[in-house]
This record gives sequence, structure tokens and C-alpha cells, in this order.
Amino acid sequence: MLEICIIGTGRVGSQLIRVLSHTNGVKITQIYNRTKIKLKAFESIAPTTSEISDLKSANLALIAVKDDAIAPLISSIASIFPIIAHTSGSLGLQKHAQNNAVFYPLQSFSQKEIDFNQVPLCLEADNRQTLDTIENLAKKISTQVYNVTTEQRKYLHLAAVFANNFTNQMYAMAQKICQANNLDFEILHPLIQETATKIKTTPAIEAQTGPALRQDTQTMQRHLKLLSTPEEKEIYRLLSRAIQNTHKL
Amino acid sequence: MLEICIIGTGRVGSQLIRVLSHTNGVKITQIYNRTKIKLKAFESIAPTTSEISDLKSANLALIAVKDDAIAPLISSIASIFPIIAHTSGSLGLQKHAQNNAVFYPLQSFSQKEIDFNQVPLCLEADNRQTLDTIENLAKKISTQVYNVTTEQRKYLHLAAVFANNFTNQMYAMAQKICQANNLDFEILHPLIQETATKIKTTPAIEAQTGPALRQDTQTMQRHLKLLSTPEEKEIYRLLSRAIQNTHKL
Repeated sequence: MLEICIIGTGRVGSQLIRVLSHTNGVKITQIYNRTKIKLKAFESIAPTTSEISDLKSANLALIAVKDDAIAPLISSIASIFPIIAHTSGSLGLQKHAQNNAVFYPLQSFSQKEIDFNQVPLCLEADNRQTLDTIENLAKKISTQVYNVTTEQRKYLHLAAVFANNFTNQMYAMAQKICQANNLDFEILHPLIQETATKIKTTPAIEAQTGPALRQDTQTMQRHLKLLSTPEEKEIYRLLSRAIQNTHKL
Repeated sequence: MLEICIIGTGRVGSQLIRVLSHTNGVKITQIYNRTKIKLKAFESIAPTTSEISDLKSANLALIAVKDDAIAPLISSIASIFPIIAHTSGSLGLQKHAQNNAVFYPLQSFSQKEIDFNQVPLCLEADNRQTLDTIENLAKKISTQVYNVTTEQRKYLHLAAVFANNFTNQMYAMAQKICQANNLDFEILHPLIQETATKIKTTPAIEAQTGPALRQDTQTMQRHLKLLSTPEEKEIYRLLSRAIQNTHKL
């Protein structure tokens, strides 16, 4: 039985609590949040506390708090837990605990329940035995387990910004254009789905279509006239140029 | 029985031929392409021709050729067909034929076979009877049929550039970052899928996450240092600013 203390009950922490509370061979021994009221929802799952001094030893502490709070938190609980793993994409492996690890679920978590079985878990540890422990845990809850170094994880997090945040901003701009013209954004759903699915089997660079790729200057000029703000026009120009530069190489 | 002549056997034309050749109440009477060799693949489906002068009358001509070629083509065959519909997203309703229509399938067509039943068909016509004819046809092959004016279609096409071409460029950049760092792009698939699925139920603007939204300047500075070209840095800066401006409003 792997005993786990969960530190933090935000988006990542609460999803981890949900999935780990139903995982065989795992016991959540304690749940921590510095704000007492945020622990209410978890009282039926495990003992909760808002006091660092109340934390009791377990095999592993999983830390899911804001990046800035991670290092000081690990320092203050380093003596209690043999292994401390954080769940941040952008922070390196910390060195304050006895054994240090990273347990980074690469997914965009909202309130919605996620099928954890499909969430890539990116792991790192400062020794083989610690890696084995978190790898065993990871494989219990997901089929997508990867060993990723701190250096790689930095780039992975950057790639995720392009693949998720910037992509989502493109969706938001498309949705804005639809709304302003009484068009149901739903019309674009199949296209969005097709593009997101296509890149699983076709390199994105080969999947490209559209006026920029075709060097269709007339259509691009017409599009620029339809856009209302300088920022929208700048994005259209820059991304069209990026497509053309990508395909020049 | 609706008799249809298909003009053009490119990506859109060939997908239309494939689906219409299996549609009840529809008969493909002739298939045209100006390049004879490109008709080979369709000879078993219907009579083919590379000569405009060989075209025979049918209830409807569906034109799936390059935008620039559409207007002259319609003029040269206007007397042969009672209804001529083009399939372009960016061209307005033409006025050269007896009855004019638009039959625009909003999807990114590659070689891959598409489930036409899910392809939004955006229709327009210069009179009610013509619209009825193409609407009946559209409903035979897709569950997603929309009436869209020329003006709306222009914006829809622009929105599709953001939702598809620019999004795909974001995927390509993420994939490039992964490849340069020995990271399997597959790690990002669930995230990409989740984001594309989420916008079906959550407005994209509400689905946004990430360092730009959080005003996490330190992470953004670190990301900028990891990017290798001035163009990549410019895209990162501009889209991060766009996210922040979008969420300031």
C-alpha cells in the first residue's frame, strides 16, 4: 500500500485526489490546503488539514500548489516525507527533500472531470528507486507515462503553450468573428475536430492548407480588410508569413 | 432523380463524387476536368470529359475548381445547366447562370476519406426554388446544413483560417519544439484533443489557461529565451499579448 499525502486542492490537486481515491494499492493519508474552507469537499475522502505542523508522514507527498509556493513548501516539509514530488510543468526537479521527484500531468484541467487514463504523466526523479516508486504509481492511473528530464520538460511546457493556449486563442478569435456576423460557431466544430485529429497521424506541417500556403494574395488582402483591430491584422499577417516561411524551408 | 454534373476533380470535387455516387435519388451524369489524365480514376463512376463542348445538360452543375477559374467557367456553361452551384468559401454568389447557388462544404479536405455526414454545408441561392433544390441535395449527404449569405460566408472563411490554418501552424511549431528536444509529439495529443473538444461546450475565451492569462511574466521570459528564431519570439509575444488583451475586456 502506497501512502500518499496530497498538498494542494486546486485544479490539479483535486483531480489527483479524485483518481487516487479510487486507485488500488494507494491510500490517501492526508489532504492539505492552506485555506481551510477549500478542504470541505474532501473531508469524506481523507483527513484534511490547513496546518503544515499537522502533516503526518507518508511514503510520498504530492505537491500541487502554485509554482512560486513549491520550493518553500518542500523545504518546510522535507523532514516529514521520504519522497516529495511536485506536479509543475515549468519548474525543475527540486533538491530540498530526501528524495525528489516530478509527477507532471500534461493536461489542461478545468472543473470538468478528465479521463486520467489518457493523461500523459511526465516523470523525473533524482534516483532510480524514487523513479520506480512514482513510475509504479503513474502506471496505476494512466497508460501514458513518460520519463522527461527537467530540460525537456521546459520545452514541453513551451510546446504546450503553442498547442493549447495559442490554439485556444485562435479558436476565441474565430468565435468572435462568427458571433459578430450571426454565424453559429458550431459550423466550425467539425473543421476544428478534423485538424486536431489529423495531427495524430499526419505531421502538422504536411496537414497545412489555406490561402497563406497557396500564396493566395488576393484572398489574404480581402481577409485583412474584414478584420477590425490592428492586433487582429498583425496576427493574421504574422501567422500567414510564418506559414509561408515554414513551407519555404 | 437529381442529375448532377461535377466540374472539377480536385480535393473537393473528388470527395463530392465519392459521396454523391452512393446517394439515393442522385445520379452523376458527367464528370469534367480540363486535364484528361485526372479523369482516369472516375471513369468507372460516370462518363468523363475534358472538353467544355462535350458537357450535356443536367439539373445541376457543381463546380469545384480554383476560385479564379469559377467565373469564366460559369459563363461558358451557363446555357447548358438550369442551376450552377460553386463550392468556394471565399467567392460570392455568381450571377452568370440562369439560377445560381453556392454549395460550400466547410471542411479541410486532404486525400483522407471524410465522413460527409458531419461536414457543414453552407448554402446560398438567388431564389427560393434553387435553394430548395440544393437544400434537398445537401440534406441527403449531411446532417449539418446551413443557410449562409455571401457576406457571412466571407467572415466564415476568415474564421476558418484562424480555427484551422493558424491553429495548425501552432501545432507545427509545437511539433518542431518537441522534435528538437527528443520529445514524442504524441505527449501533446491528449491536450490538443481536450482543447478542441472543450470549445464545443465552453466558449473558447472561458477555456483559456496558461502563463499569458495568469500574467506569469517569469515563465513567459523563460519561454522567450528557449525560442530560437526572431519570428517564433514575435509570435509568442504577440499571441500572449492578444490573450491578455482579450481577457482585459
